Amino acid sequence: MLFSLGSGKANMDPALINFKVLYVLTQLCGLTMIVLVATWIGQHFGGLAGTSNPGVEFNWHPLFMTIGFIYLYGNSILIYRGFRTTRKKTLKLTHAGIHMGAFILTVIALKTVFDSHNLANPPIPNMYSLHSWLGLSAVIVFSLQYVAGFVAFLAPGLRENYRIAMMPLHIYFGLFGFVLAIASALMGITEKAIFAIKTPAYSTLPPAGVLANVIGVMYVVFGALVVYLATEPSYKRKPIPEDTALLNSSSVNE
Amino acid sequence: MLFSLGSGKANMDPALINFKVLYVLTQLCGLTMIVLVATWIGQHFGGLAGTSNPGVEFNWHPLFMTIGFIYLYGNSILIYRGFRTTRKKTLKLTHAGIHMGAFILTVIALKTVFDSHNLANPPIPNMYSLHSWLGLSAVIVFSLQYVAGFVAFLAPGLRENYRIAMMPLHIYFGLFGFVLAIASALMGITEKAIFAIKTPAYSTLPPAGVLANVIGVMYVVFGALVVYLATEPSYKRKPIPEDTALLNSSSVNE
Repeated sequence: MLFSLGSGKANMDPALINFKVLYVLTQLCGLTMIVLVATWIGQHFGGLAGTSNPGVEFNWHPLFMTIGFIYLYGNSILIYRGFRTTRKKTLKLTHAGIHMGAFILTVIALKTVFDSHNLANPPIPNMYSLHSWLGLSAVIVFSLQYVAGFVAFLAPGLRENYRIAMMPLHIYFGLFGFVLAIASALMGITEKAIFAIKTPAYSTLPPAGVLANVIGVMYVVFGALVVYLATEPSYKRKPIPEDTALLNSSSVNE
Repeated sequence: MLFSLGSGKANMDPALINFKVLYVLTQLCGLTMIVLVATWIGQHFGGLAGTSNPGVEFNWHPLFMTIGFIYLYGNSILIYRGFRTTRKKTLKLTHAGIHMGAFILTVIALKTVFDSHNLANPPIPNMYSLHSWLGLSAVIVFSLQYVAGFVAFLAPGLRENYRIAMMPLHIYFGLFGFVLAIASALMGITEKAIFAIKTPAYSTLPPAGVLANVIGVMYVVFGALVVYLATEPSYKRKPIPEDTALLNSSSVNE
């Protein structure tokens, strides 16, 4: 897709400097995004609560989805390029570990939204919105990817030719799930803003509304940076000597 | 990013067969998506109207955005790979032409939504929602891309080294604008469903609500197919002899 401007040795350093600058920017965006979501629910929607207060328990949903299903998911994707001198095997374990963290937060985030619907009086229907359909689809894509990736690349690990054949699809569906998670989050922010920003209304753009929109913009910027850093060929990690020492983890370099 | 399973001559045919199957599927998805949007506004929201009926004039907005800013935009991206035996120069002109068609429909779609707000009684505020912020951002990205791409690659056309340097960014921002357009459409469908599906409410998933969600799913499937077809390296167009006859259109092959 995006092809390299300079793949020769002499040009490697500028590409890596660009990568590092954008990588730091990505982290700042991601952390800002999390702080803004925490501020949004804390300042405007009552903070956090347990099942005794389902309307406020809901707030775990955007918070944990943002931390788990966007920030950790994106960072797990970037681990190979961000820590390029680390051994491949360690990176694979870290990739699987961060993704597991993302998955656990996502499951908690799902539990709290179902709670907030089922325990409300009267109960709110589940799974009717486009947000819920696409959000759950993103979770399913993520989960299937996790199982397939774990079996193929980590344990037991398939034969090299299978791994080589699977890698482009692993990358494609990994990025697809990530972008779908962000699109779902944008719909979720839209729903919450319409339903919960009432006096004054969202359409008058009060502080809670401006913050909602800024959070949405941050999701997009974070997502755009992650996808760029993960796909620009000149940023690709090169195998290091320790990788080639272990034959079964050396052949698929991304 | 996605790397090829078989780049050798012997493996080219299977890749192209896959491409053709997915390309036809993409067109079917795209046309279905347009028909569903037309059905949605026709069956549930009163069809189409002019400025005398701003509430119904609104319906041009989802219809023309779907045809122009999603279907034509996606197809214009795919033109190089879809018509791989056509001369490069012809493809560039077609790419610019379809994009211009997309742009014109998008501008009309913007006019109708502003009309539907400004002419309503009482008027509805403009540009307050995340949908409007990100949707307009997508239009701006698209427009800047159009101007930059036209000047660099078509007329007057920059020197080859500049074109080679710009191409990865042209591709990245082209796909970014396209995905952002789809994300904006998903928010737009969400807004319309919440605001306009009232008796029975969207949350009870009446036919208009199911159709809204299916339209959203089709946007995602269409977008995912376009991005895959446009980025999978084994589907990349190869230069043809007619291209190399014209030196100034031969060097950047995507």
